Amino acid sequence: MVEVGPEVLRSYIRDIPDYPVKGVIFRDLTPLFKEKDVFREAIRDLAEMFSGVHVDIVVGIEARGFIVGAPVALELGTGFVPVRKPGKLPWRKRSVSYQLEYGAEALEVHEDAISNGQDVLIVDDLLATGGTARATIGLVEQLGGVVRGVGFIVELAYLHGREKLKGYRVEALVRID
Amino acid sequence: MVEVGPEVLRSYIRDIPDYPVKGVIFRDLTPLFKEKDVFREAIRDLAEMFSGVHVDIVVGIEARGFIVGAPVALELGTGFVPVRKPGKLPWRKRSVSYQLEYGAEALEVHEDAISNGQDVLIVDDLLATGGTARATIGLVEQLGGVVRGVGFIVELAYLHGREKLKGYRVEALVRID
Repeated sequence: MVEVGPEVLRSYIRDIPDYPVKGVIFRDLTPLFKEKDVFREAIRDLAEMFSGVHVDIVVGIEARGFIVGAPVALELGTGFVPVRKPGKLPWRKRSVSYQLEYGAEALEVHEDAISNGQDVLIVDDLLATGGTARATIGLVEQLGGVVRGVGFIVELAYLHGREKLKGYRVEALVRID
Repeated sequence: MVEVGPEVLRSYIRDIPDYPVKGVIFRDLTPLFKEKDVFREAIRDLAEMFSGVHVDIVVGIEARGFIVGAPVALELGTGFVPVRKPGKLPWRKRSVSYQLEYGAEALEVHEDAISNGQDVLIVDDLLATGGTARATIGLVEQLGGVVRGVGFIVELAYLHGREKLKGYRVEALVRID
């Protein structure tokens, strides 16, 4: 087995300056996903970080959060629930709106996705300002889910997203300062 | 281990009449994804169907194809490559346009996602008319990838999507006639 620490993971994250807008550096994780040993170790390490926590359901945030969340669910032996952009889910659903730097966004989840009292781990690829993760916590709690943790591959520490997630256990494999 | 055959999988697929338009039945796989034993067995069975094939890379089609493709990649021990809707990938990319019932669509992939001669398995949740899968085959082949198979959880046999994928190995866990 290849040992994959934060420095190795960081080397598979591609920085794209001025994307999607000038002054922003986009962190592209596709090089990490396509490298089999790196992808496998990232998923295992993220699952391992929450191995002491009881989890019934892993929630992944559309769309890159599906790439990380669904395999983490498989690794933890739980079900997987997608939280999606508006208009994508076909059945009865709950919705939450939130503010981002570039305007208002919304997220949706099926009403029957989580049962009252279920333990939930929320997963996304990247923690930036924390707005999307915070909104997802709200959705999960609307359904009676208990958020046991929020996990990311990368945390952009300079955006202070953790502050929006106070009171919850937050883990990330790589921290970029 | 729970035995999960096609009938059990079928019972976790929710039919939604007249969605997204009148006369169409939408097949909602979220009940299947959230049930841990059913989700795990579906991923394992799909990976198992291609266990005799050499695969370097699993390609998943945005967005539900990520929920199936990424865990299949983990299960097969390969890397994962997302094929995405236009404007989502931040780096240099290739694009393909195709026709669907409701108008033209396009898909994109990063130029460096697949190397010349790599063996590729394409995964999506559902085979309908086959337009999206056929376009994805085109993208993979543009990059020099060799498509070794196309795998789905569900095949809507009455839409004859297989005909668009002739010459390729196509597998689905559940067939709806």
